[in-house]
Amino acid sequence: MTSVQDQIRKKRDGKTLANEEIKTFIDAVTNKTIQDCQTGAMLMAIWQKGMVPEEVETLTREMMSSGEVMSWPKEWAGLVVDKHSTGGVGDKVSLVLAPALAACGCKVPMISGRGLAHTGGTLDKLESIPGFNIHQSAAQILEILASVGCCIVGQTETLVPADRVLYDLRDATSTVDSLPLITASIVSKKGAESLSALVLDVKFGRAALYKDLDSARELAQSLVHTGNLLGMRTAAALSCMDAVIGRCVGNSLEVMESLETLKGRGPEDLMELVTTLGGLLLQMTGSVSDLSEGRKKISDAVIGGAALSKFQAMMEAQGVANETARSLCSAHSDYYSVLRKAEHQMELKTPTDGEVLEIDGLALAEVLHKLGAGRSKVGEPVNHSVGAELLVLLGQRVSKGASWLRLHFETPRVTADQIARLQGALTVGSNTPTHTHTHTLVRELLPPQ
Amino acid sequence: MTSVQDQIRKKRDGKTLANEEIKTFIDAVTNKTIQDCQTGAMLMAIWQKGMVPEEVETLTREMMSSGEVMSWPKEWAGLVVDKHSTGGVGDKVSLVLAPALAACGCKVPMISGRGLAHTGGTLDKLESIPGFNIHQSAAQILEILASVGCCIVGQTETLVPADRVLYDLRDATSTVDSLPLITASIVSKKGAESLSALVLDVKFGRAALYKDLDSARELAQSLVHTGNLLGMRTAAALSCMDAVIGRCVGNSLEVMESLETLKGRGPEDLMELVTTLGGLLLQMTGSVSDLSEGRKKISDAVIGGAALSKFQAMMEAQGVANETARSLCSAHSDYYSVLRKAEHQMELKTPTDGEVLEIDGLALAEVLHKLGAGRSKVGEPVNHSVGAELLVLLGQRVSKGASWLRLHFETPRVTADQIARLQGALTVGSNTPTHTHTHTLVRELLPPQ
Repeated sequence: MTSVQDQIRKKRDGKTLANEEIKTFIDAVTNKTIQDCQTGAMLMAIWQKGMVPEEVETLTREMMSSGEVMSWPKEWAGLVVDKHSTGGVGDKVSLVLAPALAACGCKVPMISGRGLAHTGGTLDKLESIPGFNIHQSAAQILEILASVGCCIVGQTETLVPADRVLYDLRDATSTVDSLPLITASIVSKKGAESLSALVLDVKFGRAALYKDLDSARELAQSLVHTGNLLGMRTAAALSCMDAVIGRCVGNSLEVMESLETLKGRGPEDLMELVTTLGGLLLQMTGSVSDLSEGRKKISDAVIGGAALSKFQAMMEAQGVANETARSLCSAHSDYYSVLRKAEHQMELKTPTDGEVLEIDGLALAEVLHKLGAGRSKVGEPVNHSVGAELLVLLGQRVSKGASWLRLHFETPRVTADQIARLQGALTVGSNTPTHTHTHTLVRELLPPQ
Repeated sequence: MTSVQDQIRKKRDGKTLANEEIKTFIDAVTNKTIQDCQTGAMLMAIWQKGMVPEEVETLTREMMSSGEVMSWPKEWAGLVVDKHSTGGVGDKVSLVLAPALAACGCKVPMISGRGLAHTGGTLDKLESIPGFNIHQSAAQILEILASVGCCIVGQTETLVPADRVLYDLRDATSTVDSLPLITASIVSKKGAESLSALVLDVKFGRAALYKDLDSARELAQSLVHTGNLLGMRTAAALSCMDAVIGRCVGNSLEVMESLETLKGRGPEDLMELVTTLGGLLLQMTGSVSDLSEGRKKISDAVIGGAALSKFQAMMEAQGVANETARSLCSAHSDYYSVLRKAEHQMELKTPTDGEVLEIDGLALAEVLHKLGAGRSKVGEPVNHSVGAELLVLLGQRVSKGASWLRLHFETPRVTADQIARLQGALTVGSNTPTHTHTHTLVRELLPPQ
């Protein structure tokens, strides 16, 4: 039996840890019998030296088994699916995709997260709906999946406790961006959901964790490989995250945009992500024969209103008053009769004539974060009504002085510096051959094996 | 102002930390405002990426300034000296060198350590003398230096507190063997002694931290460079640590051997180390014009008995009864009338005729450690009477069945496995051209600049 010091030394020297050693490490992390300084050193050694696929598999499996692992009725075999995204700006895919998949007969026990720094969180978005309760026990999740087919909930206390500990320490020790650690964190949580199929939306670009396609592909490959090893059919899409998904950023604004999408009036780029990710999942469950059939089935569920009904039922099952849910889902909803509107709105103007060449999603998200749309520390509240609506699209011709962004804010007020930063996020000019814009976000697929 | 996370990230990525960042880190370590996981991660990042000489200098200086820095009377300017060894088996150099230097007019505020694992500690050796008190305040040290000229004491609470914290964490996180961390730990403590000159005994070989001459030289260069930058004249000797220094290993046995040496009857290899290290120090204080004159002066002080008088005076100043000190220092002392003798002695026999080709000091030390001569954890007691006497020398011709080692033990009793391990430490054979033995331990010098 090797000591913790021996295990750290082994990884420090770039050697491969044995399965038993990884198990010992994760047990010690879960039971808090390892010193924090040792966990910090081990995380940094893993960051520096990486892990071979076998180590990543064992790490993921041991983290998954550190707590409860869900189990489902036999008749759901092959139907339990989920999606994970590595985080973007204006990413409301889950709000549309979960009910669309439920409408296609899937069971979707979607366990989501909260936002941190510039990245928004699905749970924060849903909590802008009065009454929406993201805390659901394993028994309640089972019940909602049986009756509705989908739920979007927070991580329970009992699921993957090792990840909870490691996540905080990774943040404190600057070891978040490590391929094996990211892989194990994501896949262990999905593994504990006992999924039949998992699809990953791995983002790259200015507003993503990975700036370039190559590193995003490397992560996607690691996630897909490990997911498959853990018995889930796993596929991934690599999608560009330079600007904003859809037109809205901010918690309640994104709920509105999701509802508009579920009413058939959604932005193209959001629909592209929803149908691609959903199509891949339907393909993996075997309910369609290829991706294009899967895409079509998801699109039909969204456009035809079946997904909207599921969303309404899910809201009700998760604590939203029937009247509120009905009001939000009506064809011509007055959203602000339910969702709080920010005290102040301000429209920013385009500085010159020309074509919209770039919108810097990261700059936008960072200013909104400062205005209260996001949190800097776990546990801080967020202001659901703070956000921004893009009034122009990439590639659109605009005239000088036209409104391009509507900012929603309260206290703190927006500062002159922040307005300047927002104006800097917009690039208007004349398109040259070097500036080719594609409005397709998905650039590459790692299809099911 | 960068955050702790930013600093960790910077070192993680192999960048150079600014002086201000290193100061912030050491302040946070000293004031315990940094999380242990962060210190662990930073230590591992330093282990992996190293530090440029400027970073090592700043780290050392900031660690030195984390607590009290000693000050000496003006008239001692140029005279305050000390030695540091990286740790060996049977290394009793300090016990002879400190009084020899005092006899040559130096002031020697020798702050030593305790043994850990297979390495013996000077303080443990001295504590086998009844009454010897290694705990002396700064004021008492000053007084003893004024009256005697040398003392050998434990680290005070107020000196280099940052090292105390980091040392424990380095041990827990397997980051002990890092060149910048070793350098800063050693030189900061010597810097806090406000030395005029420092000599380092950097060991290499089977029973040393560094197994080969090249890595030991690299450490020696780093120590000498940093010591000089901190205003101490610094030199180093690179000495071989394959076997045993002298013939005795174990706390009270080494005290006896040191006393025998101070009475002019010491082993050649020990005398070589004492005169070389002392000679370098005398050269740096300017009291001799070259190393050979320095060696001679130290040798005269030992052979002529002046060093013995200083040792006797030092014992008395540090709490040993006059009668006890006198008895230990008399020409034909019955050492066991003062020092405890182990309950059991056992002589091991040579298995074959031939020449003594090798003695494995590490194996010897590791068995003695298990028998209680050393400790596995800080704070554990040691058994002063456990040890071993070599009855043969390297290169000596022996006959089968002759005694080669006398083992002193109590409880736990020596096991058959341990005896086999000890027998394995002795290599007897016929000398071939590939087995050339030199009995000179010092292989290279980094002389004063």
